[in-house]
Amino acid sequence: MNAAPHEYLYESLADEISTSIATGTYRAGDRLPSVRQLSRQKRLSVSTVLQAYMLLEGRGLIEARPQSGYYVRPSEAAARPEPEISSPRPDPTQVSLRELAMVMLRDSENPALIQLGAAHPNPALLPTRKLNHLAAALAREHGDQSSRYVYPPGYEPLRLQIARRLLAAGVSLAPAEVIVTSGCMEAVELSLRAVCEPGDIVVIESPTYFGILQTIEALNLQALEIPTHPRDGISLSALRFALDHNPVRACLIVSNFNNPLGSCMPEENKRLLVELLAERQIPLIESDILGELYFGDERPLTAKSFDKKGMVLLCSSFSKDLAPGYRVGWVAPGRFRPRLEWLKFVSSGSTASLSQMAVAELIASGAYDYHLRRMRREYAFNVERMAQSVARHFPPGTRLTRPAGGFVLWVQLPEIGGAVPDSLELYKRALGAGISIAPGYIFSATSQYRGFIRLNAAVWNLEIERAVARLGEILEGYG
Amino acid sequence: MNAAPHEYLYESLADEISTSIATGTYRAGDRLPSVRQLSRQKRLSVSTVLQAYMLLEGRGLIEARPQSGYYVRPSEAAARPEPEISSPRPDPTQVSLRELAMVMLRDSENPALIQLGAAHPNPALLPTRKLNHLAAALAREHGDQSSRYVYPPGYEPLRLQIARRLLAAGVSLAPAEVIVTSGCMEAVELSLRAVCEPGDIVVIESPTYFGILQTIEALNLQALEIPTHPRDGISLSALRFALDHNPVRACLIVSNFNNPLGSCMPEENKRLLVELLAERQIPLIESDILGELYFGDERPLTAKSFDKKGMVLLCSSFSKDLAPGYRVGWVAPGRFRPRLEWLKFVSSGSTASLSQMAVAELIASGAYDYHLRRMRREYAFNVERMAQSVARHFPPGTRLTRPAGGFVLWVQLPEIGGAVPDSLELYKRALGAGISIAPGYIFSATSQYRGFIRLNAAVWNLEIERAVARLGEILEGYG
Repeated sequence: MNAAPHEYLYESLADEISTSIATGTYRAGDRLPSVRQLSRQKRLSVSTVLQAYMLLEGRGLIEARPQSGYYVRPSEAAARPEPEISSPRPDPTQVSLRELAMVMLRDSENPALIQLGAAHPNPALLPTRKLNHLAAALAREHGDQSSRYVYPPGYEPLRLQIARRLLAAGVSLAPAEVIVTSGCMEAVELSLRAVCEPGDIVVIESPTYFGILQTIEALNLQALEIPTHPRDGISLSALRFALDHNPVRACLIVSNFNNPLGSCMPEENKRLLVELLAERQIPLIESDILGELYFGDERPLTAKSFDKKGMVLLCSSFSKDLAPGYRVGWVAPGRFRPRLEWLKFVSSGSTASLSQMAVAELIASGAYDYHLRRMRREYAFNVERMAQSVARHFPPGTRLTRPAGGFVLWVQLPEIGGAVPDSLELYKRALGAGISIAPGYIFSATSQYRGFIRLNAAVWNLEIERAVARLGEILEGYG
Repeated sequence: MNAAPHEYLYESLADEISTSIATGTYRAGDRLPSVRQLSRQKRLSVSTVLQAYMLLEGRGLIEARPQSGYYVRPSEAAARPEPEISSPRPDPTQVSLRELAMVMLRDSENPALIQLGAAHPNPALLPTRKLNHLAAALAREHGDQSSRYVYPPGYEPLRLQIARRLLAAGVSLAPAEVIVTSGCMEAVELSLRAVCEPGDIVVIESPTYFGILQTIEALNLQALEIPTHPRDGISLSALRFALDHNPVRACLIVSNFNNPLGSCMPEENKRLLVELLAERQIPLIESDILGELYFGDERPLTAKSFDKKGMVLLCSSFSKDLAPGYRVGWVAPGRFRPRLEWLKFVSSGSTASLSQMAVAELIASGAYDYHLRRMRREYAFNVERMAQSVARHFPPGTRLTRPAGGFVLWVQLPEIGGAVPDSLELYKRALGAGISIAPGYIFSATSQYRGFIRLNAAVWNLEIERAVARLGEILEGYG
């Protein structure tokens, strides 16, 4: 850890402590370990430690307080307020798509930005108070249980609630057929691992959520992107062609409200998709993470509802409609259940117990349904308002989706001054204006969507309306 | 979902509902969806649904209540109390080692068994009330934050506390170098994925924790088991030989209190191990999950403390000494940080926010240290008591470890009546007597420890003492 050798041990030790202070492990006002403690920890004599502390005192980094010990002194830098969480500005031309997506997600923690980038739900629509209240009560009343492991498949009362809700999505299964995961991301990842080997080809919709693309990349799988209609979802004829010409091992789709498209496959297509794949013994991994956020009168069915052979692995979570930070997702893996349950155990052991208990309780209380009804109305309204605003403020020729659910809009930029603006460049300019957007690039493994952006329409207010107008102005600047 | 075709749609629907009742999705006393709801969901006419309900009523499965709807009737089976969580009795000769480990872990949820199997901490020694109290307060006071995503690397105040504690383990690093995971299991899994490709060889201690073996198997890696001394840990000469003769990609060890051995590598061995591997550019994955539970006067250093090149990925969690169900672990991945952070994102997104906040708060309050001091004394005492009891009650020739920390004992069975008892068979007989133990088999990929068992010594009381005596009697029965 030390850069250069020193003549004396105490100099090395002083350097090490300086580093701890510089990197923030010890901060202004913190008490340092006692001389005796440090001497024990470092296997150094008491006098060596004392010399190190005196050296640091001489450098003005620490100070001795009588009867109390050594403390880190406030430095000039420390006196200035520091940002809570760093948000490095990337040069998008120098970062990979992988890093770009991470940077965009971290931007979502920056309160100075107007958030049209990450697809986070509207915090004002989440029943956070109610859920936290339940969690607090459970922690008090069932303390032992909430701190104990809940081994896979997970907390039984939660699996029961999930099984019941699935009836409305056309799926009849037993609670024992559901496995709780840490979010939908883990459900999808474990599903891919359950049915694929490294090198295998997975067919996906195009565009598709960048997290899915990156999970496929991290597992050393190959993504084969299939044309997808902005309203009806994946093209079955293109899919059939792809299956006829490639050794496809699995298919992964978001049948209801694909992110970023907002498309929803017609029931007949879902049935045909399941049959097409089942004939070829190809498992279907279906993410239904936004399935409850429909704008129409009825909950759309899942492809899983047409599954007669247990070949569909249905994945979802409560991260978009209840509590992102609770990390409660699930998978109903059909015939792949034993392998998936094992993979859950060997990859993360189990899912946080208190989170599972609180979510189960909220659903059982009826509050989840009540809250979903309100959320659907609000999202339908906000998406429509943002669509109108984009239509008004963006240059002529702009095209945008008409989602049937969820809360994102997918915008195709028009040609301006002889060229379509590059969304990576636009992302950069927008950041400069204090607005985070999602550049189209990250929704494809082959950078096809240079001229697209995704906008999060979960929230609608005057500030957001102005941000959309500002994006329009920035686009005009390309002329 | 339907077994046989039916002449009428209402018969199929009735079958489906019967299944939902049989599998427990609807239970005695539950209200079924209204006729109108079900007709909408299933795209069937109101009269078809009504016919299905009448059929089920005729079969005695459901009943109509005036002005209210249809309800599931209590069946004879439902009138008998059912066990809370199933605990299937396996025939160990018919299950794989993989399944055996899962079965043993699920046994730990069975209150009827005396738990000497799974290595769960002693619940009475965990500061569960205090931690839950903090979680409850945080949920009330910082609700928004606790329900929001905390993207990798994780909650900053928690990473700061971890960096501070690491100083006592000989490691100086910045909070930014720590990544929060969902338990130590995920930390180890992501570390393996960060440095290995499928097919690669990983050297490990033998015996080693079965979860590690299974994680290696699930990632399609090959485990190369190295002789390990019950007190000093992995044999460096055997390791050197293995490295000279095999294309090893990574080394994974538990340097402090290997589970099941309780061994603790001397400092000099840790230094040599790190050098030996660094010379060959081989990353070292070090699990320190039990490092805080030492019986001696000082916290043992980690191998990471000798890491000059960022080649050591140090993994740990708070699952053994604070709260298993909170699922808070972490990794300090050295030079592999960017890849590991990305893998965390693409495999489970983030770790539960409230769990991270509560653990950070508990450490900062000083309660964690206070509690660890008590825990170390109690475990040293309980392990000693169990060792004495095993020595007294087990047949002559029994050998057992002298752990320097942690809370498990590793027992080598003697020859009785001309043969060493098979631990799988013993596991079965012990279960029959209401006692869960861990058969030696599962601690090796090559079934080497047929004549060993692991005992959890976290708890000591009269019931446990009797269970040890009972195990001794069962062993005498082999004579």
